[in-house]
Amino acid sequence: MDERTFVQGLARWFAGDRRLPVGIGDDAAVVRNPTGSSVLCCDPVVEGVHFTAAAPLHLVGRKAVNRNLSDLAAMGAVPDWLLVSLVLPRGLAAARRRQLLQGLRAAARQGRCQVVGGDVAVHDGPLVVTVTAIGHLAGRALTRAGARPGDTLHVTGPLGGAAAGHHLRFRPALREGAWLARHGAVHAAMDVSDGLLLDLATLLHASGGLGAELFADAVPIRTAARRRARGDHERALRAALGDGEDHVLLWTQAHGRALPAGGPLSARARRPIGRVVAEPGLWLCRQGRRERLQPQGYQHALAGR
Amino acid sequence: MDERTFVQGLARWFAGDRRLPVGIGDDAAVVRNPTGSSVLCCDPVVEGVHFTAAAPLHLVGRKAVNRNLSDLAAMGAVPDWLLVSLVLPRGLAAARRRQLLQGLRAAARQGRCQVVGGDVAVHDGPLVVTVTAIGHLAGRALTRAGARPGDTLHVTGPLGGAAAGHHLRFRPALREGAWLARHGAVHAAMDVSDGLLLDLATLLHASGGLGAELFADAVPIRTAARRRARGDHERALRAALGDGEDHVLLWTQAHGRALPAGGPLSARARRPIGRVVAEPGLWLCRQGRRERLQPQGYQHALAGR
Repeated sequence: MDERTFVQGLARWFAGDRRLPVGIGDDAAVVRNPTGSSVLCCDPVVEGVHFTAAAPLHLVGRKAVNRNLSDLAAMGAVPDWLLVSLVLPRGLAAARRRQLLQGLRAAARQGRCQVVGGDVAVHDGPLVVTVTAIGHLAGRALTRAGARPGDTLHVTGPLGGAAAGHHLRFRPALREGAWLARHGAVHAAMDVSDGLLLDLATLLHASGGLGAELFADAVPIRTAARRRARGDHERALRAALGDGEDHVLLWTQAHGRALPAGGPLSARARRPIGRVVAEPGLWLCRQGRRERLQPQGYQHALAGR
Repeated sequence: MDERTFVQGLARWFAGDRRLPVGIGDDAAVVRNPTGSSVLCCDPVVEGVHFTAAAPLHLVGRKAVNRNLSDLAAMGAVPDWLLVSLVLPRGLAAARRRQLLQGLRAAARQGRCQVVGGDVAVHDGPLVVTVTAIGHLAGRALTRAGARPGDTLHVTGPLGGAAAGHHLRFRPALREGAWLARHGAVHAAMDVSDGLLLDLATLLHASGGLGAELFADAVPIRTAARRRARGDHERALRAALGDGEDHVLLWTQAHGRALPAGGPLSARARRPIGRVVAEPGLWLCRQGRRERLQPQGYQHALAGR
């Protein structure tokens, strides 16, 4: 059983109701309170999984916050509040604890939100930092479920090679997400965390079982991925498609309906990297040929059946 | 450095503003949104710290939720939404995963709230379940900061010996908290998690540096603590004062102002277990004598300076 199957099971297990317009399985939940809607998400970062013991702790704190802000961004939400749960390894030096807090605070400030609570525990195990982010909608919610055949596919930034440092240092695309949510031509969006192919497959599944063609020449490749590939373009492209931890936004938009000028999108982000098709599956298009792709990227393998 | 000092430092580190009526250092945060207030808290439960590897996982799930609901109860808040972050040990059997989810769901149902999101990761370490609870205020917020000299002290239930099973099976005092929040005679409240003495000291500190006298004959002792003390009343009393994980509510109320009849409080809870005094410190009163007490209970010791 993989993480994806498990989370799909969770959505059935914890069934929602009318007060829950968007529940388990999207980047964040949208809940309807008597006085308005909130957008909620909660992701941990774990030593040995999301960062190594050698990672500077201010970057770990930053990542812990920004992973969650990226999820809010993908919903078109604006962050307001953060809660931080720290499970610290026994004996963690005060200076390193302070670095962690510095990173948490700096990322909160950059995201214009505030740490308002949480908890701390000490154990004989790895560092676990779990951040909860609570925000509000700038307009409508951008879910994964709205893609339609013919939509063009877009990403806010380059992909691949995040392990070289980007995975700790990325900036969540908050401005882009809030801007995209204001435009009806945008049909679906999500945060690219597990890798473009895997996340795209999730989006297409959530949109009723569609497929997509990616344009090989249009997929933007991060410099770190090119560098690591040492001139092997195919290898760099595979890294862009599968590495993950990019934390850019992937969105789909109505074919032929350009988004208005201005706003935070780069010219590159406005150019399609592919298109949605009715036939389920993923394809890579280059030089007139169409090659089948397998969804691959990062998944937590869960043991047992 | 202990957990208490660390959390006090955090309150300064992550300074609040007007939109934050209650920030770091209380049972939960109260945040003011344009459309209303929310009450937020987030506590982890960690294998080896909050439960042993032998604990049935449905009880671990239950505790993970109820620790947080107890924090909301202590604010006089009503729970609405839960987020669950699971860091699972690699190889955890599917049946045990299912038990954990059963416990989470059962506790959510009993608390009349709903799991709407979260995340799952797998690692080579202990099970960490971090629940975030989001609620709304039934009336005003019950903080730790409102105690006044002369107030009587009360608890919603008996204390001590929680390790024998209560720490996994307690029910959060949600009805009591919401009821207490409706009565102006109630000045301060908190969840007893670290032990009566330690938590009382926290409440008195938050209320501007007050003290308290506890009435030895009035402190209610849980049967498990009596049984474990084998007839040694002094030992049973010490357990009630210091064991912790009771998750009853401790509150202070204006002297001479009885709460209205009816509601969820037991007759026992209406009888004072002590009183607040102006002089800082803790005392135990019995048979006309006053004996100084040291705040003691459960604290996470943090290494380093």
